[in-house]
Amino acid sequence: MLIKKFFSIKEMALWTRWETLLFALLAASVTILYDIFDQKWIVLPWTPIALVGTAVAFIVSFRNNAVYGRLWEARKIWGGIVNDSRTFSIHVGDMVTNEYAKEGEALAEDELKKERIILVHRHMAWLTALRYAMRSKKKWESFMEHQTNREWAKKIHTPEFVIDEKDALAEYLSEKELEFVMRVGGNKAATIIKLQSQHLRRLKEKGLLWEFSFLVLEKRLASLLTLQGKSERIKNFPYPRQYATLNVYFVWVFVALLPFGIVPEFAKLGDELHDAYPFISEFFIWISIPFSTLVSWVFHTMERIGTVGENPFEGSANDVPISTIARNIEIDVRTCVGDSFIPDPFEVKENVQM
Amino acid sequence: MLIKKFFSIKEMALWTRWETLLFALLAASVTILYDIFDQKWIVLPWTPIALVGTAVAFIVSFRNNAVYGRLWEARKIWGGIVNDSRTFSIHVGDMVTNEYAKEGEALAEDELKKERIILVHRHMAWLTALRYAMRSKKKWESFMEHQTNREWAKKIHTPEFVIDEKDALAEYLSEKELEFVMRVGGNKAATIIKLQSQHLRRLKEKGLLWEFSFLVLEKRLASLLTLQGKSERIKNFPYPRQYATLNVYFVWVFVALLPFGIVPEFAKLGDELHDAYPFISEFFIWISIPFSTLVSWVFHTMERIGTVGENPFEGSANDVPISTIARNIEIDVRTCVGDSFIPDPFEVKENVQM
Amino acid sequence: MLIKKFFSIKEMALWTRWETLLFALLAASVTILYDIFDQKWIVLPWTPIALVGTAVAFIVSFRNNAVYGRLWEARKIWGGIVNDSRTFSIHVGDMVTNEYAKEGEALAEDELKKERIILVHRHMAWLTALRYAMRSKKKWESFMEHQTNREWAKKIHTPEFVIDEKDALAEYLSEKELEFVMRVGGNKAATIIKLQSQHLRRLKEKGLLWEFSFLVLEKRLASLLTLQGKSERIKNFPYPRQYATLNVYFVWVFVALLPFGIVPEFAKLGDELHDAYPFISEFFIWISIPFSTLVSWVFHTMERIGTVGENPFEGSANDVPISTIARNIEIDVRTCVGDSFIPDPFEVKENVQM
Amino acid sequence: MLIKKFFSIKEMALWTRWETLLFALLAASVTILYDIFDQKWIVLPWTPIALVGTAVAFIVSFRNNAVYGRLWEARKIWGGIVNDSRTFSIHVGDMVTNEYAKEGEALAEDELKKERIILVHRHMAWLTALRYAMRSKKKWESFMEHQTNREWAKKIHTPEFVIDEKDALAEYLSEKELEFVMRVGGNKAATIIKLQSQHLRRLKEKGLLWEFSFLVLEKRLASLLTLQGKSERIKNFPYPRQYATLNVYFVWVFVALLPFGIVPEFAKLGDELHDAYPFISEFFIWISIPFSTLVSWVFHTMERIGTVGENPFEGSANDVPISTIARNIEIDVRTCVGDSFIPDPFEVKENVQM
Amino acid sequence: MLIKKFFSIKEMALWTRWETLLFALLAASVTILYDIFDQKWIVLPWTPIALVGTAVAFIVSFRNNAVYGRLWEARKIWGGIVNDSRTFSIHVGDMVTNEYAKEGEALAEDELKKERIILVHRHMAWLTALRYAMRSKKKWESFMEHQTNREWAKKIHTPEFVIDEKDALAEYLSEKELEFVMRVGGNKAATIIKLQSQHLRRLKEKGLLWEFSFLVLEKRLASLLTLQGKSERIKNFPYPRQYATLNVYFVWVFVALLPFGIVPEFAKLGDELHDAYPFISEFFIWISIPFSTLVSWVFHTMERIGTVGENPFEGSANDVPISTIARNIEIDVRTCVGDSFIPDPFEVKENVQM
Repeated sequence: MLIKKFFSIKEMALWTRWETLLFALLAASVTILYDIFDQKWIVLPWTPIALVGTAVAFIVSFRNNAVYGRLWEARKIWGGIVNDSRTFSIHVGDMVTNEYAKEGEALAEDELKKERIILVHRHMAWLTALRYAMRSKKKWESFMEHQTNREWAKKIHTPEFVIDEKDALAEYLSEKELEFVMRVGGNKAATIIKLQSQHLRRLKEKGLLWEFSFLVLEKRLASLLTLQGKSERIKNFPYPRQYATLNVYFVWVFVALLPFGIVPEFAKLGDELHDAYPFISEFFIWISIPFSTLVSWVFHTMERIGTVGENPFEGSANDVPISTIARNIEIDVRTCVGDSFIPDPFEVKENVQM
Repeated sequence: MLIKKFFSIKEMALWTRWETLLFALLAASVTILYDIFDQKWIVLPWTPIALVGTAVAFIVSFRNNAVYGRLWEARKIWGGIVNDSRTFSIHVGDMVTNEYAKEGEALAEDELKKERIILVHRHMAWLTALRYAMRSKKKWESFMEHQTNREWAKKIHTPEFVIDEKDALAEYLSEKELEFVMRVGGNKAATIIKLQSQHLRRLKEKGLLWEFSFLVLEKRLASLLTLQGKSERIKNFPYPRQYATLNVYFVWVFVALLPFGIVPEFAKLGDELHDAYPFISEFFIWISIPFSTLVSWVFHTMERIGTVGENPFEGSANDVPISTIARNIEIDVRTCVGDSFIPDPFEVKENVQM
Repeated sequence: MLIKKFFSIKEMALWTRWETLLFALLAASVTILYDIFDQKWIVLPWTPIALVGTAVAFIVSFRNNAVYGRLWEARKIWGGIVNDSRTFSIHVGDMVTNEYAKEGEALAEDELKKERIILVHRHMAWLTALRYAMRSKKKWESFMEHQTNREWAKKIHTPEFVIDEKDALAEYLSEKELEFVMRVGGNKAATIIKLQSQHLRRLKEKGLLWEFSFLVLEKRLASLLTLQGKSERIKNFPYPRQYATLNVYFVWVFVALLPFGIVPEFAKLGDELHDAYPFISEFFIWISIPFSTLVSWVFHTMERIGTVGENPFEGSANDVPISTIARNIEIDVRTCVGDSFIPDPFEVKENVQM
Repeated sequence: MLIKKFFSIKEMALWTRWETLLFALLAASVTILYDIFDQKWIVLPWTPIALVGTAVAFIVSFRNNAVYGRLWEARKIWGGIVNDSRTFSIHVGDMVTNEYAKEGEALAEDELKKERIILVHRHMAWLTALRYAMRSKKKWESFMEHQTNREWAKKIHTPEFVIDEKDALAEYLSEKELEFVMRVGGNKAATIIKLQSQHLRRLKEKGLLWEFSFLVLEKRLASLLTLQGKSERIKNFPYPRQYATLNVYFVWVFVALLPFGIVPEFAKLGDELHDAYPFISEFFIWISIPFSTLVSWVFHTMERIGTVGENPFEGSANDVPISTIARNIEIDVRTCVGDSFIPDPFEVKENVQM
Repeated sequence: MLIKKFFSIKEMALWTRWETLLFALLAASVTILYDIFDQKWIVLPWTPIALVGTAVAFIVSFRNNAVYGRLWEARKIWGGIVNDSRTFSIHVGDMVTNEYAKEGEALAEDELKKERIILVHRHMAWLTALRYAMRSKKKWESFMEHQTNREWAKKIHTPEFVIDEKDALAEYLSEKELEFVMRVGGNKAATIIKLQSQHLRRLKEKGLLWEFSFLVLEKRLASLLTLQGKSERIKNFPYPRQYATLNVYFVWVFVALLPFGIVPEFAKLGDELHDAYPFISEFFIWISIPFSTLVSWVFHTMERIGTVGENPFEGSANDVPISTIARNIEIDVRTCVGDSFIPDPFEVKENVQM
């Protein structure tokens, strides 16, 4: 997530340089053919092109709206993970106690605290597994295939691309559990929730967790599973590819037609200047090149900007900053149960939170 | 669900070839009448046609938005099924125990496990019954009536169209229960939930399920019934046919009027070229054919692409991939209760998940 | 609810025949005055009319969106009734038992079943009372005042318009309770829920319903009351009449202005043909009549089609099919508690489910 | 809430008469200056004005959408109050019993009934206090400042503007409680909920309310507080004034520019008629007055109609009918607990429910 | 939050004076070059500019819609805090009692009241900590960087900018707890909830809080944590900067092109006046300056007005009035538990509630 007010003009210009060049070349070709090679017939009527432009503005706007919806929903889900994590750690703190302990099962306070810390660490392991799953690569996530996107990506720091998942999990799980999670395969995060549930059950059977508190915490696990599932849903179900296809083809149809409609408008204006400004009149048509490029750029950038938020966990600068969120959760919950080690927040690079 | 970035130009061209041909023929007919048969009067004023075009862009955009809403809701529902399935299996794992067993009712651990596996298998049976119900044919699901849609459908693999429902259910239900479910008729999935509830009740009466855990699991069954009902709602309540009718008629009205408005615009441009390019001027009007076809194609494809997602369980390439989701659930929950057999994920054909 | 793919052209033409005629007459009048009576001054500038047309397209699209929202919400509510009904019957089946029966209150299995069936039948009575309330006539539901709408309505079968409410309720309630419900007046459906609650309380006091199961079932009744209230809300709170008024007046303003703007455009085109096609040129202006009618038809039908879904329980072909839904619920829940009589689904007439 | 199909043309004309007059005067001034005083230069180019018109149509449509959202949300909240009120009264009826009464605390049936009726009456008091709070005047609720709005308001009957709040509350509260509620000040409705909670607690402590039923009813009170808070939120947080400001200024900018763009269009059309209809041609420009007025009226009324629903509890004809809803609740819940007095519904005046 | 009907014309004019000046200068430069320096060739075709204008209207409208959504959601969250706060204080009042007190743990009524007041004061501390967190400065919150925004901000009273956070918290927390909250660092509000939970646990262990009431209150704390998290989400996740960037660049592209398209339109109109009004004709083109400025102002203000609500806790006049809401909560809950001191509401300055 970008955390400054705007992308600068320079950033935008660099980011869109290849297509801008293409638009300029296209506009230039048409103008050259028209003016230098005197092929005055390569023109198209403007009004139907404008109608296509209006239709394109419609569908691209709707798409960007839908994409914003995806992004916002993704952020809400991770906001929900923050909330449930805090609640989980507070509940663990005040529900894992000796009050209902069965005979001979009561523990010393520091042993109780150890149980609580195991639960909270395992929770961090769940968060870590989820984080890595979200950053995995999907076939339709082609952000990185675009050179100017890759340039951006190189500048920023995405922890999941740097640290190995197993190493990351090892910080939170016992060796035995880590080995189990890696071996079982399938959905690692769900496996970790399963381990949490088994731990809670053991605590309940010893009376270290009141049986109705057990139900409350099981409900919390169910809620975490739901948030995990929602996050996976956004990861695994892209903006429908048929719509995405449509958008990109329509924009290119419009952009391709545009110079053919704009050049004659400039030719007409140029002709009107003929008597008064014979010199300028001759070159006036060349203004159509930057003008046509600018209009193309507006429509194409509108489309492209929608694309970058389509997959909010792809690892781009416009992602939902799940690494940062996860780290902040870690700081909160470790503080809450009085853990001995509190990590630092992730650093921000190039004004981008990951 | 398509899982690559875009449909290729070739795929789009093939998919829309018949209507494209029709647009070309229509445009050609008008041009031929106008130019060859010299019927210069078959023209219509452009601006009211453009106004109709704007109105069409509006209603088609709104429709596509609504259809996207249906698709997204369908995916959410099946995401909910994933979440509830995982939670159900974890809860079954940690709630079906001997802790509260009544005298003489306690079971050996492997017998308890058997009970759990029966519950989880029956859950898979419910999922299967729901899956088949979703793939059944509705009168308004006319996707397959379109030849180019059928071509697509042939290439992809839809398990429900290949394997018999009873055979599929037999994998998960005891013979007696299978026979019961098939005989009772009506809503098979609901009948299976009924069986689950009876099983839970029996476990509770023996104390193998704590009475408050029984309430928690009954709530989960209610939630599964709700998700089932929501999925059925989307299946059984199409996008209102009056709106669908309107869209298709309006697009065709626009497309039919279009060449009559575009041909004279080209004629005018052609006339202007008369002195400078006598030869080109004569044939310039023929450019209106590809141009008119292109504009028609943009508007019609915008409409048609909305249609393909209208019924998200129809069996098309743009469906919510319920077979894949169901299989992934199966892998997750079987792993969770330590089942002996874990199936493979479904294969992906032509980049389409079903 | 229409259950075929589209309304046919013939159906649409018949349904809109009166206004189409009116548009044609209006366009013809203007053309006749202009051409026959040579009143060339009855013209208006086209562009401001086009601007009004754009504004109309906006507000009508937004309205249709809102109306679709109402329809979809109504369907969701009735989908919720399906879900709650199934859950209610399953819970009644597995919660009304002897397990917690107080001394001397335990019942034989067939007597227990009778209690369950009374509860489920009374649930059907609730559904019936709600159904009839939804089909009652509201002042703003003017669908039937339009002749072409009445024609449609005659062809379809709406059970609530044919069978008397008391007779329908008599199938599900004991004589005493029926008499009570009819006498008390006010909201019949709410009264029936009250009877359910009293029955549950009696069962709980005898121990035939565990006291915590009692809370679960009371919660279900609260949820049914909520769904009933939501359905009544949609029935009793129409799309705001000020907006509806606006839409209809604006469309008619546009439609009334249209021919004055279109006729001169055709006159101009006709004039241009004068030299080449003297005969056709003379009559060319008459093409404005079908053209103007067509454009009027597009805008007016867009508005009218929104109107028909405005009140989704009015008894029109575009309603939410509450009779069908209620009958399907009846089949489901009777099957679930093992009732002796299972009714048939309602028949579909003219491809319309009611 | 208007309960007939449409506002009549007469009603609309009367309601918008002052601004219509203003538009006519403006258009007339421009025409007079142009034609009589021959100031042919007071013209503006039409196309940029049309662009402003399009932008205005956009933002006004979006606003009306948002306002409809507010109205619909307000109605949903009051629908929720209906549901919770019914549930509350049914639960009170079947949960305030002797079943768990502590020794010596059991009451005779008519004394129990009295307790129930006190609870239900106090609930009506809450509803009444809320109703009066909703009808209080806010600084931004300027509906009544407009003369034509006041005319409407005079014709309809708003109980809260006629009956004193204290008198209204006195019908439902004991003298002591009434005195307490009026004295404590602050939020009266919240104070009444507080009294309800204390009453429930007393009943629980005597065992006249099972302790888990106590939790259920406390949850219901929390839910009523939530609905109250939501209703207050809509009352206290208007549609953002910066957007409202924008809408009104933009519409007036457009309306002010309009005649300057339309008059020259008519002048041009008039000129073209010069030879054929010298007399009509001279006066043709005057048609621009009604035409310009009509277009202004369309855009301005579109804006104004949005304004009237902005504050759905203001006391206008387009309000959510909270008085009617509250009265219907009263009838329902009094019937439910077998109260001796059942009031009549409020009368409807001028087809407006308040 | 502004609480009068509209911003006055003067306020709007002052607020937008710098950009208005810029638009005027731009328009004047073009006109001067065109007319005084006779550079008649600095023109651009109008229709593509109008198309860009339409696209800009689209995306700005969509943005404003999304921003309104953020604002409304923020207000909903704070409305939820109101509801939960009232419920919390009522529940504390009727659930912290001696009814279930363990032997020797029962307290005198005034000691119980003290416990309740500690809980309610600590709740106010939570609210205060949240309030200060919401008013902290984010990198993208650039409202104050704009001089005209700063002018507005100076006039209004934002308590969080005036009173030190620690002093504010000291009113509600014991010295020891205050010291703890300030020392622990991290999320202060979450720490305070943790303290609440520990207090509840102590009360439960003594039996001053029934164990099931403990679960109810813990659920309420979880709900408060959720609302806190939602509020933080809106604070920490701005409207995506890529979209914001797009909007601002597109508007400026449009505004920069505008005069080049409008000047020639005026030149044309001026030329037509040449014969009849030689004097006026010469200066007619200068009208393009105010006209162009006005149209620029409409589009730019539409964009800017969206910006001001983007970050609803930034401290601007268009914020969600969290200080006022928090103070009102304080008045409500202190009244509810019978506190001795009730503060006054915050004063309103310049018709702005903070």
